[in-house]
Amino acid sequence: CVHLAALIDLVRFMFYPPRCDDDDDDDASCPIDEEVAKLLELKAQLGGDDGKHQFVLKTAKGTRDYNPKQMAIREKVFNTIIGCFKRHGAETIDTPVFELKETLTGKYGEDSKLIYDLKDQGGELLSLRYDLTVPFARYLAMNKITNIKRYHIAKVYRRDNPAMTRGRYREFYQCDFDIAGQYDAMIPDAECLKIVHEILSELDLGDFRIKVNDRRILDGMFAVCGVPDDKFRTICSTVDKLDKMPWEDVKKEMVNEKGLSEEAADQIGEYVSMQGGMDLAERLLQDQKMCQSKLACAGLSDIKLLFSYLQLFQVTDKVRHAVVFDLSLARGLDYYTGIIYEAVLTQAGVAPVTAEAQNGAPGEESVSVGSVAGGGRYDGLVGMFDPKGRKVPCVGVSIGIERVFSIMEQKAEASAEKVRTTEVQVMVASAQKNLLEEKLKLITELWNAGIKAEVMYKKNPKLLSQLQHCEESGIPLVAILGEQELKDGVVKLRVVATREEGTRTSTEGVCVCVCVQFSL
Amino acid sequence: CVHLAALIDLVRFMFYPPRCDDDDDDDASCPIDEEVAKLLELKAQLGGDDGKHQFVLKTAKGTRDYNPKQMAIREKVFNTIIGCFKRHGAETIDTPVFELKETLTGKYGEDSKLIYDLKDQGGELLSLRYDLTVPFARYLAMNKITNIKRYHIAKVYRRDNPAMTRGRYREFYQCDFDIAGQYDAMIPDAECLKIVHEILSELDLGDFRIKVNDRRILDGMFAVCGVPDDKFRTICSTVDKLDKMPWEDVKKEMVNEKGLSEEAADQIGEYVSMQGGMDLAERLLQDQKMCQSKLACAGLSDIKLLFSYLQLFQVTDKVRHAVVFDLSLARGLDYYTGIIYEAVLTQAGVAPVTAEAQNGAPGEESVSVGSVAGGGRYDGLVGMFDPKGRKVPCVGVSIGIERVFSIMEQKAEASAEKVRTTEVQVMVASAQKNLLEEKLKLITELWNAGIKAEVMYKKNPKLLSQLQHCEESGIPLVAILGEQELKDGVVKLRVVATREEGTRTSTEGVCVCVCVQFSL
Repeated sequence: CVHLAALIDLVRFMFYPPRCDDDDDDDASCPIDEEVAKLLELKAQLGGDDGKHQFVLKTAKGTRDYNPKQMAIREKVFNTIIGCFKRHGAETIDTPVFELKETLTGKYGEDSKLIYDLKDQGGELLSLRYDLTVPFARYLAMNKITNIKRYHIAKVYRRDNPAMTRGRYREFYQCDFDIAGQYDAMIPDAECLKIVHEILSELDLGDFRIKVNDRRILDGMFAVCGVPDDKFRTICSTVDKLDKMPWEDVKKEMVNEKGLSEEAADQIGEYVSMQGGMDLAERLLQDQKMCQSKLACAGLSDIKLLFSYLQLFQVTDKVRHAVVFDLSLARGLDYYTGIIYEAVLTQAGVAPVTAEAQNGAPGEESVSVGSVAGGGRYDGLVGMFDPKGRKVPCVGVSIGIERVFSIMEQKAEASAEKVRTTEVQVMVASAQKNLLEEKLKLITELWNAGIKAEVMYKKNPKLLSQLQHCEESGIPLVAILGEQELKDGVVKLRVVATREEGTRTSTEGVCVCVCVQFSL
Repeated sequence: CVHLAALIDLVRFMFYPPRCDDDDDDDASCPIDEEVAKLLELKAQLGGDDGKHQFVLKTAKGTRDYNPKQMAIREKVFNTIIGCFKRHGAETIDTPVFELKETLTGKYGEDSKLIYDLKDQGGELLSLRYDLTVPFARYLAMNKITNIKRYHIAKVYRRDNPAMTRGRYREFYQCDFDIAGQYDAMIPDAECLKIVHEILSELDLGDFRIKVNDRRILDGMFAVCGVPDDKFRTICSTVDKLDKMPWEDVKKEMVNEKGLSEEAADQIGEYVSMQGGMDLAERLLQDQKMCQSKLACAGLSDIKLLFSYLQLFQVTDKVRHAVVFDLSLARGLDYYTGIIYEAVLTQAGVAPVTAEAQNGAPGEESVSVGSVAGGGRYDGLVGMFDPKGRKVPCVGVSIGIERVFSIMEQKAEASAEKVRTTEVQVMVASAQKNLLEEKLKLITELWNAGIKAEVMYKKNPKLLSQLQHCEESGIPLVAILGEQELKDGVVKLRVVATREEGTRTSTEGVCVCVCVQFSL
């Protein structure tokens, strides 16, 4: 039998063994029957029990609540991502969820129709942020910051057609990392790819491919293939569809809808089928047609430089995590000016399982979860906000975290290991009635010592229901107060998982139960 | 001279010494000149350099960006609060930033005019959340949850008159902890107060007082003083002003504006001047008039029970952190049904310094920062959302975190200790030109080993500028590569704070510099 201080030490020891380890996720059963919850939610959405209630009990279209289990997964994913951003020396900032409407105007092209506006209730006209990049640029210009490496994790809003089973929502998180400043070519750009590589590897999402291209190579290619200057952006948008459509359909759109000559389209077709590494960049630098464009040459030289840095950063494992120079990568947003990239998961089976598991039917939903990260260089955006048009070169990456959540949730569901939603270390329980006062005194000592502890909010709970709560919540230890123990001035500490009845004179070798001297 | 693995071990050792300690806040200089930033921000808000730019470069009225220094403080405060919530076994949930407009309708009384609506762009009518309590109740009803202990930290929105120097914004954080479920009286209620006590003590904000009352005592008191039933809520609102107005003015409002008899007002005046502890509750239970109201008696018995639990929880330190039964506490919101409480900072000097430091002028702004936490029991709110009106009893507390931020920021500014905005442990630097490749190789090894490291994004930075960056950012270690070191196959590890030039044969006793064998 030991003193109260020893009880505290003992609980601490079990959670923080000498080798420092912060991760105390134990396997334990989960308190929420997810299936039942889902059905209940569906029922509530369909109109409740008997249609008696007056209002619709639901969240807004395209949005969702996160339950405690989803939050536990979310916290784990965020910790991985924030850990990586911090390892690379990033600071963090936050901006308001809404901006002046004019701040967002003219930044998103066609997608502007997806911006949520606030009602005019007098005062300024406001809109919900559409991404974190434009508020970042506004922040830099407003505070005249020319150098910063920052991350920003926050929700953004798009009035898009939600496809929630595929992780597409109207309210969703973005995890952005950006480097602003006038630096030597491709060093920050390469670090952004290193970060994508680290995060996707650490999250253990399976094989992935990082596609890389450069807007200058695309524009140069369009020029040498005979695309008129004013059609660069619209042809670029069509090229962007190559990951969803076969070349023949893309070509048709170029020729029939965008009015490009068949000859020009065919020349583009040849280039955009090319994929490779540094060797491809070298070959294209020798390409008679391509090298007519100074812009393309600058882009190709930078791709070469980028690959040399990626080699030093050890991110060119060609088998499971390939980095590919892919001339068909175009990306949607207008503001990119240099290197662009996108990471896709390539492991067969990940996505179809996803869709089927969620709606029970394969088919149209069974497409790949696709891009899980993307970004590029945007050297002109900050200048759009600066009164004198002063530019601040920027490069950044955004992690498509909702898709990652979807995958992690399915993994958790498929896994035998249950997700804990609290971190409680010890439950203060009683074996007999009328011990509330003693329990509250003991738990106060534990809380004051920084130990995560719980007690039931009942005067006289049954011992069985206290132990059941431990098993449901995965609480590993239970401190049991009983009349005999109080007379003896001790408290039993029991390991829940073993389910063995502890005795003070246990001789089983394993530490099932410890008695702690405790004066109230 | 030691191996690369030893360099990694060494850096780790310096950050994680054998006694496990997660907190690596070092004192070091800060990279941002706050004063300059403030002036620049002001200038930007006033219209920039010469009014040439077309748009207003600002955040929406009543909102603000958080810069990296503010974020570092915010993270620290959140960690304290989340740590406390987790210690008490709370799960966490998240809800969307906007709700269906009808979900918020009829919950906030007069304050409903402060709700932000979204523009009708087709589809559902939406509003930004006004607090976290109503979405919580909606979540419970929608998912038919009858038992949960959860915390929720998120931004809420109110079209209020901002007073930003006093920490009053239109977009601000709430940190809510609530216990839902049918339990024995006052146990969860007492835990909420224990949590307020723990958080305010840990944040070290100085002395505070927690005022406690009960809506049933107020209503019972109004009844026995002769207030007509239909005037309970409006008279309650007037009582709520007692912390800002003298009794004479409150009485005038009751009599002249609300039409109460002078006699009734005087009787109320006697009661609301009462403050005490368990003894006051006992005295009032004997009070001839008060004990005519069963409602008041139930409330007074519960106050007694509450104080007995608070004693067990060790939160009744009468000197610095008093808990006071205060009959003048009324609180604004309609939905409270039982115990109510509010914590105020009482240390003289905190608030006036705040206002003066921020706008240079005392006067009207020099009021107390006032309430930093508040809450109570609301047993009817969930039932408002349930189709069959099933009630789920709830009690909770909300930490007024923006005021805490304001105080912490001023403390940080006043303190000599600088706030670090990154956690970088080691800077990889070079003493000569053309060592970029070697630096990138070394930093890759460090990142892959989980060490937080930075390198400058320049091919040939000056050693001085690399060291200056360390001092500005508070980076404690610098690993220096030089030609001689590369020839010798070593790298210097220098402690930035000592500024001493390390040599391999140093005999000064202190570990200024370590040479690490490193093959590239």
